[in-house]
Amino acid sequence: MNIRLTLEYDGTGYAGWQRQDNAMAVQQRVEEAVAAVTGERAGVVAAGRTDAGVHALGQVCHFHTGSAIPPERTAFALNTHLPPDIRVTESRQVHDAFHARYDARSKHYRYTLFVRPVAPALERCRVWHIPVPLDTAAMARSAAHFLGEHDFSAFMDSGSHVKSAVRTLTRADVAARGNYITIDFEGTGFLYRMVRIMAGTLVEVGQSKRDADSIPELLRDGDRRQAGVTAPAHGLCLMRVYYDGDELRD
Amino acid sequence: MNIRLTLEYDGTGYAGWQRQDNAMAVQQRVEEAVAAVTGERAGVVAAGRTDAGVHALGQVCHFHTGSAIPPERTAFALNTHLPPDIRVTESRQVHDAFHARYDARSKHYRYTLFVRPVAPALERCRVWHIPVPLDTAAMARSAAHFLGEHDFSAFMDSGSHVKSAVRTLTRADVAARGNYITIDFEGTGFLYRMVRIMAGTLVEVGQSKRDADSIPELLRDGDRRQAGVTAPAHGLCLMRVYYDGDELRD
Repeated sequence: MNIRLTLEYDGTGYAGWQRQDNAMAVQQRVEEAVAAVTGERAGVVAAGRTDAGVHALGQVCHFHTGSAIPPERTAFALNTHLPPDIRVTESRQVHDAFHARYDARSKHYRYTLFVRPVAPALERCRVWHIPVPLDTAAMARSAAHFLGEHDFSAFMDSGSHVKSAVRTLTRADVAARGNYITIDFEGTGFLYRMVRIMAGTLVEVGQSKRDADSIPELLRDGDRRQAGVTAPAHGLCLMRVYYDGDELRD
Repeated sequence: MNIRLTLEYDGTGYAGWQRQDNAMAVQQRVEEAVAAVTGERAGVVAAGRTDAGVHALGQVCHFHTGSAIPPERTAFALNTHLPPDIRVTESRQVHDAFHARYDARSKHYRYTLFVRPVAPALERCRVWHIPVPLDTAAMARSAAHFLGEHDFSAFMDSGSHVKSAVRTLTRADVAARGNYITIDFEGTGFLYRMVRIMAGTLVEVGQSKRDADSIPELLRDGDRRQAGVTAPAHGLCLMRVYYDGDELRD
């Protein structure tokens, strides 16, 4: 059986999704829970390999098992073996060829800013604290330049090898509510740290350090050094992964 | 000078507001920061002595100092000496007789429930997880019985000595949004664990274990054993303390 899981996790205590030699990763905890429940050593493959500190509300992963445990009960069983900062919110059987990463049609990431002179005590591991007000209208106008198909080389950190940096963004929204600004990106795929570099660049637009309409030039030139800072990991959350055939649940 | 502070804190790592012999309290951290900034050992008095694990977004406290540091800069100075889970969001000079506890006209507490079969990973220290759906309409109707002046003896845990258990509630709202249910209480004063016992009782109403209209009888009889469970501390947050003469900032 091929089992698909939907995961929530608080990335604060982890070195990211991917297994590491010298630090605890979310993948290791999930694989340990799968081993405890099924008695098998199975590799668990996720849709997106989130960085250290990045959170997830809708990560998706899959693993193969010969265990007879009912697929829809697997979530409950795994949760009894997982720490409270990782939860399986759904489990179900999928066709044998389903692959959480290769079959992902699109992903939704949210980057959250908290704008106030004083940093937040309660949300400190969930948001990027920006002490000075931002021009959100300029940020929203600027974000719209990311929409569509582009070569995102300027918005990729080195560290992963890709054949092409061309990706398609279908959503790039900036919304302000109280002290919070959320930046929602949805797209067919994302390069290494692409969301965080786009978020960092938009913050510089909001600080008037950079023109709202400078994005097309950055995309054209493809020079990482010309784009903005990489926003910190803890403001980022993988909200949802979309697959063909999924019913819409939002 | 008498300095009034507004505080935010994440109660997760603390034994509550009040100084303890064998555990770290928020009060101790704030007093240590005051000592570091002013060079003086001053007692810091809070409006409400929150329990271990209870959070605050609008705790108010005061302390007296002979230091020449500008009152409105005190927040910034204290924050450099406080851990990131405690932040001073405002500081200002008040008249010498101002007392954070005795002068508080009313307080606003929010209790937050998270209703879903699976517990939340990210919000696990901020909400009380309730796995089965609740009847929020019944909870809202039931909460309205708390409004007005009553003897709240049935909703007080032993452990503090009070002359009278009569208090006045001016707000008792139940609101559902997505997986969250928030219960907002505002009143002139609250007894020991009163908010958590009211919240625990309303959850039992939502679970149909208790009649929505049983509250008046509980208030009349004044028997703690007849009221509901004490809801866990980590779902509770002190939102704001009101004083005469404060401008409305919400």
